Amino acid sequence: MASKKIAVIGSGLIGRSFSMLFVSGGYQVSVYDVEPAQNAVAKDDIWSQLNKLEEQGLLRGSLSKEQQFANITYTEDLAECVNGAFFIQECIPERLELKKSVFAKIEKVMSPDAIMSSSTSALMPSLISGDLTHKNRFVVTHPTNPPFYAPATEVVPASWTDADVIEKTVALLKEIGQAPVLLKKEINGFVLNRIQYAILAETWNLIRDGIVSPEDCDVIMSQGLGMRYAFMGPWETAYLNADGLHSYSDRYADMIYGIQKDFLPPEKIGGETLDVIQRGMENVAGPVENLEQRRQWRDRRLVALAKLKAGMNKEEAK
Amino acid sequence: MASKKIAVIGSGLIGRSFSMLFVSGGYQVSVYDVEPAQNAVAKDDIWSQLNKLEEQGLLRGSLSKEQQFANITYTEDLAECVNGAFFIQECIPERLELKKSVFAKIEKVMSPDAIMSSSTSALMPSLISGDLTHKNRFVVTHPTNPPFYAPATEVVPASWTDADVIEKTVALLKEIGQAPVLLKKEINGFVLNRIQYAILAETWNLIRDGIVSPEDCDVIMSQGLGMRYAFMGPWETAYLNADGLHSYSDRYADMIYGIQKDFLPPEKIGGETLDVIQRGMENVAGPVENLEQRRQWRDRRLVALAKLKAGMNKEEAK
Repeated sequence: MASKKIAVIGSGLIGRSFSMLFVSGGYQVSVYDVEPAQNAVAKDDIWSQLNKLEEQGLLRGSLSKEQQFANITYTEDLAECVNGAFFIQECIPERLELKKSVFAKIEKVMSPDAIMSSSTSALMPSLISGDLTHKNRFVVTHPTNPPFYAPATEVVPASWTDADVIEKTVALLKEIGQAPVLLKKEINGFVLNRIQYAILAETWNLIRDGIVSPEDCDVIMSQGLGMRYAFMGPWETAYLNADGLHSYSDRYADMIYGIQKDFLPPEKIGGETLDVIQRGMENVAGPVENLEQRRQWRDRRLVALAKLKAGMNKEEAK
Repeated sequence: MASKKIAVIGSGLIGRSFSMLFVSGGYQVSVYDVEPAQNAVAKDDIWSQLNKLEEQGLLRGSLSKEQQFANITYTEDLAECVNGAFFIQECIPERLELKKSVFAKIEKVMSPDAIMSSSTSALMPSLISGDLTHKNRFVVTHPTNPPFYAPATEVVPASWTDADVIEKTVALLKEIGQAPVLLKKEINGFVLNRIQYAILAETWNLIRDGIVSPEDCDVIMSQGLGMRYAFMGPWETAYLNADGLHSYSDRYADMIYGIQKDFLPPEKIGGETLDVIQRGMENVAGPVENLEQRRQWRDRRLVALAKLKAGMNKEEAK
C-alpha cells in the first residue's frame, strides 16, 4: 500500500463519516459525488463535525482538525476520484442495480490491486460483485451509525474475495480506530442486523400477545440488559454471570433451551400490533414531528458514552 | 399502607440489595436469615455498600447512610420478621420446594392484606403460589443484577394475583427509584431472559456455523448495538432509525421478515461450540481464575454509566 489515497464514492452521511475516519488515520481522501451542490454541503458539514469532535475530545489520530480537513478533496469526476487510490469506499443509496453499475465504472479506472468496498447494510457481497471483472477485489465494509461513536464495523467478503483484501480491510479499520467484525461467510442481514431482528422477533410476539407493553419492553433493555451491553456482548455477559461458560452451561443450558424452543414463529411487522408499538414509542420518545430533538438526545448520550469508555480504558491502561 | 415495615427473607446478595433499596425510600426493613452468621455478614456488607454508594453520589432518597443503615434490623425469627410488614420480599435460593415451604410459613404469620413477593428469576408465580391460602397476595418481583445500577425490575403476577397487589408493587418500586416492568401474564423466562436467550440462540448458530468468531460477535454488541441499548430499547431504536414505526415498517418489514424466517432452530448449549466460545471469552475477559477482576472491571463501568445517565437526566431536566 504505497498509495495513501482513498476514494469515497458518495458524499451523504455515511460518505462523510468514512472520509473523516480515513483522514484521521493520515490518509488522503477524494470524495466523489454526482452533484457539486452535494459536495459543497458535505464539505461544510465535515468542517462542522471535525470541530465538534475536537470539542468533545474525540478527534482521532495525530493530525489537527485543519490538517484533516485539508486532506479531503471533492470531485464530480469518478475517474479522478478513483485514480491512484488503494481503497475505494462506496457510500451511495441502497439500490442493487445502482451499486452494480457504479462498481462496473469504478473497476475500469481503478488500480488492479485496489480494494473495492461497499458500505451496504443489507445487500449480499456476491450479489453486488458477481458480474465484476475484478470481483476478487470486492468486500463489504458495513459501519454502525454513527461510526465515530459506535465503532463496530462488519467486514463481509464474498466467496471469491482475495485473502489480502480481507486482511488489508480489517487492518485499515483497526488503524483508524474502528472495531472490525469479520464475517467468514456472507449471510443475509450480516451479524448486527440478525441480532437486532432476533430481538425484534421475540419482543414483537410478547407485545402482540399482551405480555408486556412496548414501553416496558424497552425499559428491560435501557434500564436492564443494555447497561451491560454497552460494555460487553452476550457471551461475556454469560461468562461473568457464572464461573465461565461450562459452569453457565451446567447450570442453565436445559432451562435456556426450554425457553428457546418455546419461542413463537416470527411475524411480519404491521397491522394492529405496529399501531400499539407506535403509540408506545410516541409516549417514550415524543411524536414523529419532534424526532429530530430525540435523535439529538440520543446522540448526546452516544457521545458521552464513547467518551466515558475511552476515558476509563485510558485511565486503566496507565 | 399504614405500616412502613418491609420484611426481606434471606440475607444473600439479592436480599441485601432489596434491603438497601427499601430503606432508601424511608421504609423500616427487617431482614430474616436462618443463620446468625449470615446476618452478620450481610450487616457488614450493607454498611460497606452504603458507603460506596455515597462516595459514588448514587445513594438514593433523602436519608443519610447512617439513618438508612439504622433502619435495617436483622433476625433469625421468621414470625418476628414478617409481623406487621405490609410487603414481604423473598430472596432465598432458586429452589421451588424451598420457596413454597417458606411462603407457606410466611402466610401463617403475615397480615392478611400484606404482599408476598418473590425475587425468582425463573420460577413461574403460579407454581410457587398455587398451593397457598393467600395466593391472591402473591407476585414475583425480579430485579436485574446489580439492582442499584441496572434498575429494571420485572413484576410478574399469577392469574389469581389481586389487582391492588400489582399496583402497590409497581408503585413501591417506582418510589424507591427502580424501573418496574409489568408482565400482564406470566411466561417462561419472563421478558428479560427471553430477550437474552433470543440473542444467545441466534449468535450461537452464527458461531457454530463459522460465520463469526465469539470475540467478534461480542464486539457487534459492545461497540455497536449495545451503545444504543444503554439508553433505549429495540423499538425506540427502530422508531428513531426511520421517521417513526410506520415508516420503519414501509422500508424494512419485508427485509426483516425475510431474515427472521431464515433463523435456524435453537440448539442446546454444549459440545464443541461451547468450547470455542469458552476459549473466545478467555481471550476477551481473561481466564476463569481471574473472573473476579473482570467482574470488578464490569461493575466499575456499570456504576460509571449509571452516574452518567443520572447526571445527564438531571442536567437536562433543568
